[in-house]
Parts: sequence; C-alpha cells; structure tokens
Amino acid sequence: MLLKELREEVLEANLELVRKGLVLYTFGNASGVDRAQGLVVIKPSGVDYDVLKAADMVVTDLEGKIVEGTLNPSSDLDTHTLLYREFTTIGAVVHTHSEFATSFAQAGLAIPAFGTTHADYFHGPVPVTAPLSDAAIQGRYVHETGLAIAQRFHAHDGKPALDPLAVPACLVAGHAPFVWGRTPSDAAHNAVVLEAVAKMAYRTLTLKASATEVSQSLLDRHYQRKHGANATYGQTRSV
Amino acid sequence: MLLKELREEVLEANLELVRKGLVLYTFGNASGVDRAQGLVVIKPSGVDYDVLKAADMVVTDLEGKIVEGTLNPSSDLDTHTLLYREFTTIGAVVHTHSEFATSFAQAGLAIPAFGTTHADYFHGPVPVTAPLSDAAIQGRYVHETGLAIAQRFHAHDGKPALDPLAVPACLVAGHAPFVWGRTPSDAAHNAVVLEAVAKMAYRTLTLKASATEVSQSLLDRHYQRKHGANATYGQTRSV
Amino acid sequence: MLLKELREEVLEANLELVRKGLVLYTFGNASGVDRAQGLVVIKPSGVDYDVLKAADMVVTDLEGKIVEGTLNPSSDLDTHTLLYREFTTIGAVVHTHSEFATSFAQAGLAIPAFGTTHADYFHGPVPVTAPLSDAAIQGRYVHETGLAIAQRFHAHDGKPALDPLAVPACLVAGHAPFVWGRTPSDAAHNAVVLEAVAKMAYRTLTLKASATEVSQSLLDRHYQRKHGANATYGQTRSV
Amino acid sequence: MLLKELREEVLEANLELVRKGLVLYTFGNASGVDRAQGLVVIKPSGVDYDVLKAADMVVTDLEGKIVEGTLNPSSDLDTHTLLYREFTTIGAVVHTHSEFATSFAQAGLAIPAFGTTHADYFHGPVPVTAPLSDAAIQGRYVHETGLAIAQRFHAHDGKPALDPLAVPACLVAGHAPFVWGRTPSDAAHNAVVLEAVAKMAYRTLTLKASATEVSQSLLDRHYQRKHGANATYGQTRSV
Repeated sequence: MLLKELREEVLEANLELVRKGLVLYTFGNASGVDRAQGLVVIKPSGVDYDVLKAADMVVTDLEGKIVEGTLNPSSDLDTHTLLYREFTTIGAVVHTHSEFATSFAQAGLAIPAFGTTHADYFHGPVPVTAPLSDAAIQGRYVHETGLAIAQRFHAHDGKPALDPLAVPACLVAGHAPFVWGRTPSDAAHNAVVLEAVAKMAYRTLTLKASATEVSQSLLDRHYQRKHGANATYGQTRSV
Repeated sequence: MLLKELREEVLEANLELVRKGLVLYTFGNASGVDRAQGLVVIKPSGVDYDVLKAADMVVTDLEGKIVEGTLNPSSDLDTHTLLYREFTTIGAVVHTHSEFATSFAQAGLAIPAFGTTHADYFHGPVPVTAPLSDAAIQGRYVHETGLAIAQRFHAHDGKPALDPLAVPACLVAGHAPFVWGRTPSDAAHNAVVLEAVAKMAYRTLTLKASATEVSQSLLDRHYQRKHGANATYGQTRSV
Repeated sequence: MLLKELREEVLEANLELVRKGLVLYTFGNASGVDRAQGLVVIKPSGVDYDVLKAADMVVTDLEGKIVEGTLNPSSDLDTHTLLYREFTTIGAVVHTHSEFATSFAQAGLAIPAFGTTHADYFHGPVPVTAPLSDAAIQGRYVHETGLAIAQRFHAHDGKPALDPLAVPACLVAGHAPFVWGRTPSDAAHNAVVLEAVAKMAYRTLTLKASATEVSQSLLDRHYQRKHGANATYGQTRSV
Repeated sequence: MLLKELREEVLEANLELVRKGLVLYTFGNASGVDRAQGLVVIKPSGVDYDVLKAADMVVTDLEGKIVEGTLNPSSDLDTHTLLYREFTTIGAVVHTHSEFATSFAQAGLAIPAFGTTHADYFHGPVPVTAPLSDAAIQGRYVHETGLAIAQRFHAHDGKPALDPLAVPACLVAGHAPFVWGRTPSDAAHNAVVLEAVAKMAYRTLTLKASATEVSQSLLDRHYQRKHGANATYGQTRSV
C-alpha cells in the first residue's frame, strides 16, 4: 500500500474536523500530497467517518488520475489537485461546510481581520472568490472552483498576490471554505481556527457594522510571533 | 405485528432526530408509509424517546384510521396522512420544531437557496405556507395544516408546481417545518440538513440582508450531482 | 424529616435545569409548596448541584420563616413565597438566568407569541415587569421582585388580569425569568420550554423585526390542545 | 519544587477554562501570585491541556524572570506580571479568547451592565482599552498590553479610577479579555461568568440596540449582596 504514513495523517485530519464539530454527516474532506512522488491521498466520497480507515483513502496523481484505491475519491478531488498544482508550497487541503465560514461565503463576504486570534493564523482578511460564471458551473465545475481560488490569490485588479502560506484559506462564494497548510494536521487546525475566527467576526459585525480591522502593525506582530524567524510562541521554533 | 421492518425504520428516524438535537422533550414525530398495503406507521403521541420501542408505533390507514396499536398516534397524524395522499412519490414524513427552521417559519419567510449545502438537498428555496385562516384553525386544524403545505406545492398565483422530491420540505407559517423523503432515514436526514441550511441562511441574512441566492446553474448542478442520472457523489448511484 | 416526597421533587426539578443547560454554576433555584401544610421546600443558597441532596433542602412557611434545615435558603426565597401567596393555584416556582429569556428581560421586552411551540405552553406573550424603583431596590428587594411580577399579572392600565396557569412565566426587567407550574416537574419543564421559545423568538425578531404574533385562534387552539377539557396531546388527559 | 499548592491551583484554573468551553486548542492561560515570596506561577506556552501537569508550570519573579521551570512560560507573561505589579490586591490572572467577550473586544465596545447576572460580578460595565499604538505594538508589545489595561483602570479623562476587585476584567481592543480575582479559582470563575454575561449582552443589544443599563441602585445592591459586609448569598460570608 502506497504512502502509509500520509494516509494516517489524512485520516487523522478528517477525524479532527469531526471532533471539532466542523462536519455534518459526510460534508467535508481532507487530503495530503507527497511532493517527491507527486501523489495525493484523499478521503473517499460519502463514506461515514466512524468506519473510515486509512486503507480506504484514495491515491491519485496531481492530475487526479487514480493510482491506488477501489473507492471513488471525494467529489471535490479536482479542486484539491488544482490547489496542489497552483500553490506549490502547501502540503494538505481541507474542505468543510463549517457553519460560520460558510455563512460568510454565502454572503459573498471576506472575513475581516478583527483581532489577534485571526492575526495569529491569517496575515490579512480571508478572501472570498468571485461567483462562478454559468459557463464555469456547467463546464469543469470542480476544477473551476479551484481556479477561482487560485485567481483570487494571484495579483489582480491592481492588488498584489497573496502568499498561500500567509493566508491559508479562501471562501468560495455561494459555497464554503477551502483551507490548507504544510501538513494535514496543520490544514485541519487552520480549518478549526478559521471557523472560530468566522464566528467571532460574525458577532463583531452584528454588534457593530462599522467595526474596523486591526492595524497592519498588529497583523505583522502576531503573524511573526507564530511564524517568523523569531517566533516566541510554544516550546520550539518549528511552526 | 404488522410492518415490522417499517416500524424499525420509523423508530430509527425518530431517534436520529434526537441524536442530532432537533427535538426537545417530545416535540417531533416521524412516520413511514407502505404504499402496497396502504398503511402508515407513526410515532405515538407524547412518549419519551428513551423508552420508545418499535412495538409502540401506531399503524393507521391512509385516512388516519387506527389499524393496529394501543397508544394514541402523534397528534399531527392528519398532516402526515394528507401529505401521503397528496404527494404520492414520498415514503416518509418528519415533523420537528428544530430551532432555526422554526424561526424562519415564525417569521413567515422561505429559506433562500444561499449556497451549495442547500442546493445539494433542495432544488430552490424551502417554501413557507400562507398563515392558516381562523376557519381552518377552528375546523379540522391538523388536516388543514397538511392542506396548506399541499397548496403551496401546487401551481398557484402563476407559479409552477413544485416537485415534492426536488424540494422535500415546507415551513408552516407560525408553526414549524414538515420534511419528507423516499424512506424514513431519508426524511430524517433531510430534516437534519434543513436545520443546518436554515442556520446558515439565518447567519447569511443577518450578515448581509441583501444577500442573493445562488444561480439557477448552481442549483441545477448540485441537484444533479446528488440526484441526477449522472450523480457523482458517494460510492453508488442510488440516492 | 418533613415533606420527603416534595423534597425529592424539588431536587429533581433543580437537576433538570442543570441537565438542560439552563444554569451556570449555582445560578438557579426551584421550590415547591405543600398547600395543605402551608410549607415551602426550597434549594439552599450557593450549593453545588452535584452534591445537592433532598436532605439539604430548606423548609419554610409561606412567610419565609425557616421551619426545618440548617443551610441558608436560596437568596431568592422571598420572591418564591410572595408568588405562592399571590398565585394560589401554583405548586412550584423555578428561577434561572437562562441565556435567551434573560436577554429579553435585559432588553425589557416581553417574549411575543410567534408560533405554536409558544402557544402550546403560554397563552399569550410572556410579560416583562416594569423596572424596579430605587426605593424598591433599596428596600425589601427580593420581596419587591415578587411584587413586580404579581402586579404584572393583576389587571392594570386598562389591561385584564393574566391567569398564572395560562401564562406560567414572567420576565423581571434587568434580571431574568421566574417560571412556575402545578408541580416542581411542571415548573422545570416550563422553564426549559421558555428558554427554547425565547431562543426562537430572538431569531425570529433578528430575521424580521416586524414579525407578527400568531392569531388569537391559534393561541386558543394550541392552548386547548394541551390544557383544555378536550386535550388531544399525549396518552392521557392529565396535564 | 516551589509553590506546590499554588501550582495545583493554577493548573486547576487552566483546566476549568477548558471544561467550560472558553479555550480552543491552547488559546488561554492562567497564573497566580504568591505575594509574600514575590513569585508568579504561570502556564507554559503552547502545551496541550490534557497533558499539562502542575510540575510543568513556570515560576517567575514579578518582573517575569524565570526562577524555576524548564519550559517557556506563556507568551503573555509580561501582561500578567504587569497586572500583578499594578493591581496589588489581585492574586490571579486569566486570559482567554472566549467567543463573546472577544467579539466585544474586537468591536472595541465595553460590555454594558444590562442585568443582575452582570451586577453580581462586575460593579459597572466591563471596560475596553484604547487600541494600542503602532509604537506600542512594535515595542514591548506584551508589556504594553498590560499597560493599556492598567491605564484604563487609572483615573483618566475626568473619569474616576476603577477598583480592580470591583470590576475584575478588562477587554483589550482588537484582542480579547484579561480577567482576575483573589485566587486562581476566583479568576477562572470570573472569566466563565464574563463570557456568559458577554453572550447575554450581545443578545440584548441585537434585540434592542437602545437597551439601557441597570440603575446604580441595582448595581450596588447586587454587588453588596455577594461582596459586601452584609453578603446574603451562599452559606458563609467569605467571598
């Protein structure tokens, strides 16, 4: 069996989403990539989490062609593989319909950086894609979903490009969040924090519609605190 | 004892509503129909869920006449039987006062189709009935409740009819949701998803009152993805 | 030991509030009255629920004079006894700071009768008292709290009196709900439903500020359904 | 090992925050001070709560210099020590990113005293600091965070000073709450109540933006009831 360790990590990331209340029934999926071998390990489609095993994971190449596995891969596979091709520094992708992040996606709103909880994980607002065109929806829809995310991170409309590791999440308009990280555990952790951050942003906005984002200084300070060369959080300097 | 298997399925659907937090005390009920025999299996009225057994279920005909059982059937029986007579493709009905769906019902508002979570289960907004007239309330009230739902799905006021299997739920104004499906398990699953969808629609609207529904393309795409002949979700094509 | 059975019922009502998430730490209390003996059984003040025993309950007369017990009674005792003296048909009183009902109390707003869940338990809006005057707060404050509730149920300002058994709860402005019933179990059940009803009313109002209450017909129908001579809910006609 | 008892109390306070749902992952910390020895016991940084032991706690002096312990102290240490130096009557400090209190902090809003639950613990609104300047953020940021809290409690802009034991919490704008008390158990308890009070204030304000605070009489009455010389709550007069 290929990639035994990565399969376990991807399984564990999927289960963390369940433990933290981010998925209802089978609405969620996590994957990881082995860059050296160019292989992706992803959750199978529509399998109950309580019977899910590492051996059930599906292995595909970076184009989504199945290399190992008898179950159908997650129906969101083409979004995952596109993100791996576009964002070459990331090692794992997670997709959920977690309640508050999805509500921002449905409203077509980015999640503003209202506080240090946000700033510890996301170096600026969590962006939202443009709505997909009818042509995109009727065409290679799942692939186009990934493309909309990638486009949002490229320089566009006079805005600079975003670094996927500095802002490891994107909301797909009218859909839900995609989140990533260096490892499956990282990506799941980021998805859990994204939901907490979305929940607090929702309440901040409903308390005070004119609430303002934290300053660039604060964004920079907190981001460096956890991610910079001089990180001061935790027991080691590894992220 | 009649319909042993259906009794178990109906019991299990009732318990799923409890497990997913949709019912407080005894505020909910599920039933199933055996079309071949023209018999309905329904939860008894006001019995605690933790002592409820398959043998406690009440069997009636499609007019609500008790055929087997010593307990009183759910006080909502006449709504269930009316729905079985009107919507001949459905196999089970669930009624809850789940918090967010009920809040929309109390506000007299349909649940807009704001995202793909919704579109995977409901091919358009979840409609709300007109308020019942005093005459209806003072007359055959429970029957009239079903009638209000059926009328909402018939062509009316220049709007086309709705297919009960494409939109398997309706809110009763000032009351709460009724939900259905092909099987008791299906109907309970739809009721759980309805509540999740209502919760996210509530937050979408309170974040942005002018939020817009997803496009018809997206509704169609997601509905086909789970229900069409070319369904791509899960491990088989059975719904 | 006096009133062994009532002590058990009062203990059980206190524990039901905890099981249903209505109390944080020791913020809540329940009592019951024995009308024949003119004695009240009430929870002691500030004792942890997980060590609370029937034998810890304090017995007082209807004026609040301690008849049996070594612990201090709940600091809200004088509100309980006033309600027993004023509302002679009730048999138990419950006080909580349950989140949503308390939020209405803090906003000084009655809980409108927006749906059938409400109408099954409360035959009209759940009223809120006027704010207590400085003199009342600086005087016999706990007694005055009960008085404010009683005054709200008496005919006043051209409004008719309310029947405490038809509307078994009142919000104290800037404070929290008091709830009652025929028995301690009844009163705790009503407190749990009040919180559910308050939660849905909150969401109804935040969805649609102009939401309207259900009709008098619907209020009457649902109230009769559970409480009238021709009650059709449950397995017996006892309330 | 220094301060064995205080280490246990600080551990227990940290765990109470977890049990009550105030912390996600490792987002929170508690400390206690031994005034006689001038030593602070604080949680180490980024250690999982389920493996945290009393022996893992870090002991520092009041300037934050490590006296005992091999792990890094909480990255918020400098805020804790500043509060101990400035507020000489307090014995413990707790910091969380609890959802509702943090939402007020993110909105830059104090938590108004809307009811008696609030008044039992906080003798007036829970204040919010001014946003930190860029210089403060880029300088001794964690120290400056404590300074912003202390400044908020000193007399300023014509407002009188606040007594840290009468109002045992402060929101840091764009960040989250800091809470304190006489003991670690007290401080954790206050943090839990602060979150409950913030939740109800949020709902009060979203129900009625013009909601008014309770009167000074009510604030005084409830504060005295739990904290004054004539306290009437609980089984003893000790706080």
